[in-house]
Parts: sequence; structure tokens; C-alpha cells
Amino acid sequence: MTAYETLERRFQRLNALRVAAGVLHWDMSAMMPSGGAPARSEQLTALDLTCHEWLSDPAVADLLSEAEQDAAARGTKARGATALDPWRRANLREMRRIWRHETALDAGLVEALAKTQHACEMTWREARPANDFAAVLPRFSELLKLVREAAAAKAAALDRAPYDALLDEYEPGGSATRIDEIFAGLAAFLPEFLGKVLERQATRAAPMAPPGPFPAAKQEALARRLMAGVGFDFTHGRLDTSLHPFCGGVPDDVRITTRYDEADFASALMGVLHESGHAMYERGLPAEWRLQPVGAAAGMAAHESQSLLVEMQACRDVAFVSHMAPLARAAFGGEGPAWEAENLLALTTRVAPGFIRVDADEVTYPAHIILRSRLEQAMIAGDLDPKDLPGAWNDGMENLLGIRPPEDRLGCLQDIHWYDGAWGYFPTYTLGAMAAAQLFAAAKKAVPEIPKALGRGDFAPLMAWLREHVHSQGALRITDDLLKHATGKVLDPEIYKAHLTARYLG
Amino acid sequence: MTAYETLERRFQRLNALRVAAGVLHWDMSAMMPSGGAPARSEQLTALDLTCHEWLSDPAVADLLSEAEQDAAARGTKARGATALDPWRRANLREMRRIWRHETALDAGLVEALAKTQHACEMTWREARPANDFAAVLPRFSELLKLVREAAAAKAAALDRAPYDALLDEYEPGGSATRIDEIFAGLAAFLPEFLGKVLERQATRAAPMAPPGPFPAAKQEALARRLMAGVGFDFTHGRLDTSLHPFCGGVPDDVRITTRYDEADFASALMGVLHESGHAMYERGLPAEWRLQPVGAAAGMAAHESQSLLVEMQACRDVAFVSHMAPLARAAFGGEGPAWEAENLLALTTRVAPGFIRVDADEVTYPAHIILRSRLEQAMIAGDLDPKDLPGAWNDGMENLLGIRPPEDRLGCLQDIHWYDGAWGYFPTYTLGAMAAAQLFAAAKKAVPEIPKALGRGDFAPLMAWLREHVHSQGALRITDDLLKHATGKVLDPEIYKAHLTARYLG
Repeated sequence: MTAYETLERRFQRLNALRVAAGVLHWDMSAMMPSGGAPARSEQLTALDLTCHEWLSDPAVADLLSEAEQDAAARGTKARGATALDPWRRANLREMRRIWRHETALDAGLVEALAKTQHACEMTWREARPANDFAAVLPRFSELLKLVREAAAAKAAALDRAPYDALLDEYEPGGSATRIDEIFAGLAAFLPEFLGKVLERQATRAAPMAPPGPFPAAKQEALARRLMAGVGFDFTHGRLDTSLHPFCGGVPDDVRITTRYDEADFASALMGVLHESGHAMYERGLPAEWRLQPVGAAAGMAAHESQSLLVEMQACRDVAFVSHMAPLARAAFGGEGPAWEAENLLALTTRVAPGFIRVDADEVTYPAHIILRSRLEQAMIAGDLDPKDLPGAWNDGMENLLGIRPPEDRLGCLQDIHWYDGAWGYFPTYTLGAMAAAQLFAAAKKAVPEIPKALGRGDFAPLMAWLREHVHSQGALRITDDLLKHATGKVLDPEIYKAHLTARYLG
Repeated sequence: MTAYETLERRFQRLNALRVAAGVLHWDMSAMMPSGGAPARSEQLTALDLTCHEWLSDPAVADLLSEAEQDAAARGTKARGATALDPWRRANLREMRRIWRHETALDAGLVEALAKTQHACEMTWREARPANDFAAVLPRFSELLKLVREAAAAKAAALDRAPYDALLDEYEPGGSATRIDEIFAGLAAFLPEFLGKVLERQATRAAPMAPPGPFPAAKQEALARRLMAGVGFDFTHGRLDTSLHPFCGGVPDDVRITTRYDEADFASALMGVLHESGHAMYERGLPAEWRLQPVGAAAGMAAHESQSLLVEMQACRDVAFVSHMAPLARAAFGGEGPAWEAENLLALTTRVAPGFIRVDADEVTYPAHIILRSRLEQAMIAGDLDPKDLPGAWNDGMENLLGIRPPEDRLGCLQDIHWYDGAWGYFPTYTLGAMAAAQLFAAAKKAVPEIPKALGRGDFAPLMAWLREHVHSQGALRITDDLLKHATGKVLDPEIYKAHLTARYLG
């Protein structure tokens, strides 16, 4: 067996343990009673440490070096190795990346991070509804201290800046420099654009909100019907509820969650469609690479591109809303002009600065991300103390969107990410939104019948294109390379701006 | 750190991985869509192999020997060791037992067993409703071959007969000789006793079945109310549905399942009460030993004693049925004499030979177990070929209960156990039923207000006694020792016979 083949066997086991932890995370969010938290933390910490020890085995380092040398010597049959094909080369690259991230930390830090993340997340779960930042501050500060320690260690191992080293886990090769540049362009574009959109919106009659209540069971039934239209296969996945909606599980068993607001059916529905986009990506990942690193998604920007392509590009398109409107009316027994497609389209594309990211419209959403990106960079750099976060958050919101959260649950307590240890993750939402616009434009150009099919609630032509050009590529290519392969060019913010302009000022 | 202390640290991790696998098993039965099976098998196999490798590390063998020598030298301060208290001695005994079972097998057999079990269980899930034994036979034969291989290896490692070695995993120290002796006594007692019971029953009016249907949601609501009465804490557990009802999870997050038959509310209700007995045992295990082997249940006979004590002893008692009858009537909006406590008591203690073990009454239940015990001993010994199982099963039923299953789904396809790899497990049901009678008699003698409290649906006095004498003991004492500690004597089948006689001929 060659070094590479031995690594494949080893990483298959490692991957199975990591996805097992993923299922336990899903359960923690969607099923676990609160009293199960300490035991679950023990289980997840044990899995983290087990994976850490596996990767820290000096034999793995030796195998990686040997396999890389073999790959470099491809074609020369050195050490009896046959040439690695592009998939195996990409797999080896991903193995090395995973290995670098994991071995940068010592076991003590891995354990402390795992336990502090779980404890901080559990405290946040209570602090958020109680609007009590002070309650979570001690654990949050402790977690940030550990994350900064991890960032420093990874920076040394990856030879990158500390924040970039964190980013690399979610967005391989991502850098603050590039993100800041892209975000600066957006920050320059958006205020004036937003002003124009609001001005134009003011000249039109405000859309009517269909009168509720909308029973959760009926919302769920409608959501399931639309999920099926997107292509979600319930023999390979589930829909459940959780405090923070997400997509978890594994490609052959994708678990998405939502939360129902009985006063507003669109929130859960659009959330389910968003998560269905993630789910379709997972389901479409290359089956022959299921348990190898290269069989995973290309990164979180690519992942968000798939959820936002479905939710923001396809499902807020006039074609799809025309299909959805009568279904929604029938589902809730509604009647009257509020249920007309035109009105629902105006509602789902309504622009209005608000406090909550996950409820934000497409135009103001980037401001939420720019704020978080700035704040997390400052916290990682040590320039912002956690105790000063609420004030900095509120100042930032005022500065970016002209509104000031009256309380922390509408401010810095709203998102789970920092509290569960995900730092360097937020930028991928807006990178994903831009990639979604670029991919949707390319897909429609390549397959002109896509909009017509969406008008029947049929995502098959769109998904067929995405499966071929994105999903089936796994981590063979990383974001820009993937976009270039699929659309002919790397990430181009202009396409996103063009999309916004066409939709909101067209 | 002493060898024993090092072992505690190691087994804490091992235990966390094993209970993580338990959560994945629960999910597989209660939540997982069918398409997730292959990925789940990968995850569980990876966990099994990881645990196997941990225990097979020569350092563990050295630590065990050293800790045992330290313990033997207690009081002499040899090697700087302080004397181990009884809990630590019992913990060390359980570590050694777990180690013996695990290291008896090589990694190849562990992997083959794990994968074949998952595959065979998944095939059984389809073969049972399809009534198609032939469909599961190839995998079943393959699994039996591996189980026999494991039994032989464990027999050598534990210095016991192959079947006893399997039994030891579920019932530490259990032996076919003792079980056969107990079962022979029952087999001699029951036929004549059953005849008398049926004769007497025939002299009375048959109880009326309350007319259904009983909507599953209403059954569930009633079940949750009664669970709360038993003491089930929903911040530390869940109730869900699954094909084969069971109790899983961990002590601080106990997951019980049931299945609803809309034509018969008593089946799910009694099932839920049964699993609640298991759940209370798990919840009451000693908190300070949560992640150590000694913190687990004393074995499956002890576990079944707790579920059957609740279901068969307490919940089929006139006191409890009098409490339950008006609640059930109100829950389903029933009226008329069928809902009178006296009628429901007659229904829930009705004796009638039937094909399905889990639906069997208390008097005929042991026959189902005796049959399975004989058949599995024969299969492990190589005296019964899997292909001949359906015929042997049907002959056995005819011989023991005078009825012959017309099809395999009412015969050898009905239980999950053999198909998911649990061999040497069945006898614990009847050992548990006998222990339940013995414990309930002792509890009532010690705490005379127990029946009165049950008449209010209040299990607190019963549970307080059980928690002190059984639950909190963990694996400090094993079955007979535990019974002696709690009731003053080892397992005594005469107490069970006296219970049956009092209830059915009293």
C-alpha cells in the first residue's frame, strides 16, 4: 500500500468520527433536553480529543510527507508510486490542511476549547432570551481567550495572520485583506444604493401582510411540499425545529432545521428553502469520495452560495413567487389581495433596515456581516475587549444602518456563532451571497428554461446544472477556482451589484 | 498518579465514546431516515474500532495488572497505593471485565461484527413487515457465524463456555447451567398453573375492550402524564416513537421510545410505563460515577427488573389501575362500563397464549423466553442451523404454549435482538421479571404506604426505596449480590411463583 492509500484508510476513520460528532451536534440543537448538556459535552470532547490524537500520531506526519513526495515525483514511479489524479491530489491537499489546523493545537487547548464552547453555548441559550449579556460575558471572555490562543498557534503553523488562520478553517485560503477589500467596495456602494431603493419603495403602496395566525403544522406541511420541489429527498434527510436554524448531518442523511413564527409564515418558509439549498449541496457531493476530505464542500462561502442561491436568487424571483402564492393561500385558507403573487413578491423583497441578521433583506444583509467581520477582527487582534462588545455593536449598527439596538438580544446576543466557537465564519455569508448571484446568472445563461421551471416550483433544471458544476466537485476546487470552473471567472462583486440593481431599481 | 487513577481517566474517555455510540443508536432507531444507514454504520464501526484499539493498547493491560496488584496489597501501602474503597474495587473489576470482552476479539472481527450487525438489522427491518425470513437469512447466517466466532474467542479469554461468555456481557457471571435450572423449574410449574388460570378465567365474564380508535396524539399525552407520575423528568429525557420500543441515551438524558396502535391504547401505555422503569434506573445511577464502568447498571436482569417492576408489578396492581382508569376514560372521551377500573384491571391481567412476546401476559411470557433461550443456545452450539430456525421456533411454540405461528413475522422474525447481534440477552427478561416480584415484595414490606401512593399515581415512595436499594448501587453489586443487599436473599423463583399465584388464583 502506498503512503497515500494508507492515508485514505486512516482519514476514512477520522472522517466517520467527525461526522458522528456532527450528528451529536444536530441532536444537541434539535432534540436534546437541557439536562443532557454536560454528558453531551463529555461525548463531544472525547471525540475531539480522539480525532486530535489520531492526527497527532507522528506516523500521520510521515505518511503525509511521503505521499507529497510521491505526488511531486508523479510519472517517475519513484517509490513505486503511480501518479495521483487530480482528485487524489486535492484530497492530499485537504488532508494536509486538516492536519495543520489540528496539530497546531496541543491536546490541552483542544480539550479546553471543546468544553468552553459547549459551556458558553449553553449559557448563551439562556442569556439570549433573558437579554442578559452579563450572564454570558465570563464564559464568552474565557472562550475568546482560548480562540485567540488557537489563532496564534494556527498562525504559526499555517504561516498566516491569526485571523486569516481562523478564516482558513471555513474558507480555505481566505484572507482578511481580500475580504476587507470586497467589503469596502460594498460599504461604499450600499448606502447610496439603499437610499435609492428606500426612496423608490416609498413611492409605492406598502405591501399588505397576509393576516395570521399561521399554525406551525400548516407551515411545516407547506415547507415540506416546497422542499420536495427543490429536490429534497426525505429518505435521505429530515426537517426539524431548533432555536438556531441550520443544516447538519451527512450527505446521505441531511438534517435541516427551522423555527416557526405563527404570526409570519414567510420567515420559516424562506428559512427552510435556504437550508434546503445547503442540503442539496450536501446530497450532491461526490458519492465516491463520501468519507474523504475531498468529498466535503469546498468551504463555507461555497456552502452559503448554495443556500442563498435557492433562497434569495430563485425563491424571491417573480417566477417562483407566482408558483408559491396560490399554494400558500390554499395552505392557510387565506383570501383577498394580500395573497396575490405581486403582493407577496413585494413583501419578500421589501427592504427595511432592521436589527436581526437572519430576518434582514438582501440589501441590508451585507451591513450585518460587515459589522461582525470588523468586530471579530478587532476582538481577535485584542483591540476590542468582550465587555465592550455591546457598545461597539450598537455604535456599528448606527454607523452602518442608522439604527441602534435598544437591547442586546437585538444586538450582540442574537447569533450563536461566536458563543459556540465559530470565529472567522461570518464573512462567508456575504461571500456566499455574491457567489450565489454569479452562479445563478451563469446557470440561467447556460440553461434558459430555468426560470420557467421555477415558475412550476420545479428546481430540477437548476439543480442539474448546480450538481454538475458545483456539488459534484466536492473540495476538488476551492471557491475562486470553483467559480472560475463554473462561471468562467473568479468572484466578481459587480455581478452581485448588478443583481441588486436589476431587482431593486430595475 | 496511581495505576488505578490513570485507568479512571482512560475509562472516562472510553465511556464517553461508548455512550456517544448509544446516542447514535437511539437516533438510528428513532430519527434516522432509511437512506442514512450506510453512513451510520461507518460512524458506529469507527467508534467500535476506536474503543477496541484504546482497550487493546498494551499500556491498559499493564495498568490493570498494576492496579489489581495495588488493590491486593491494600493497606500495605505497596507502590505508594492507598487502599481502594469498595466502589473503586468494583470499578476495577468492571474495567477488567470490559477489557476481557473487548480484547478477546481482534480488530478484524470487531469490524466484521459491527458492519454485519448493522446490515442484518437493516435487512430485518424490511424482512419483518414483508414476512420474508429468506430475505434476511444470508445476513443472519453470516452474523451467527461471526457471533459464534466471538463466543469461542471470549470463552477462551474468560475461561467459560461459549454461550456463558456471551451471557456475561449482559448478565455478568450468568451461566446457562443456572438459567436452565431456573427455567426448568418454571417450565415445570407453568403449564399446570396456566391451565388453572385459564379455567378460572373461563368462569368469569370476559372483560370488554373499550372501543377505539385511540388517536396517537391522545395516547402520547396520557403516556406523558403517567410518565411524570412515575418520576420521569423531561428536562433529562425524551419520549419518541420507534419500530422496536427501547430505552437509550445516558442517565442525564434518557431516551425512551414506544409505538402506538390506534386500536389499543393499553399496548403503548404499558410499553411507556415499562420503559419509564428502565429510565428511572438510569436516572438514579450514582451521579459521582457517571463516566466510570461502576456507574452503569448492574446488568440487564437488574435493568429488566426495574422496567417490569413498574409495568407488571406496580401498574397492573388494582391500586394503580384504579387511578389510571378515569384518566384514560377522560383522555379518550370514553364512557360506559368498559372504562371501569375493574374491567380495565381484568383486561390488563388477562391471560391468553399468543404469538408475540412483547404483547404477552405475565403468565405466558416466560414460555417465550424459554423458547428463545433454548434456540439461541442451540444455534451458538452449532446444533441448529439458521435455515431451520422457523421450523424449530414453531415446533417450540406448539410444545410450550400449544399454538403454532402461521407465519414468521408472528414467529422468528418478531424480535430485533438476534438480528442486531444481541445473543445471550433474552434470558435477562425472565430473570428480571422474577427479580421484580422479589423487589416489589421487599419494597412494600419496608414501606407500607407504597400501594396507597400508587393509587394516587404517585410512585415517589416506591422510587425512593428503589433509588436507595437498587439504582444508586450502580454496578457495585451484581444481580444476586444486589438482590441480597436489597431484599435479604438471592434470586428466589418461589417469590415470583407466589406473586403469580396471588394475582391470578388469589
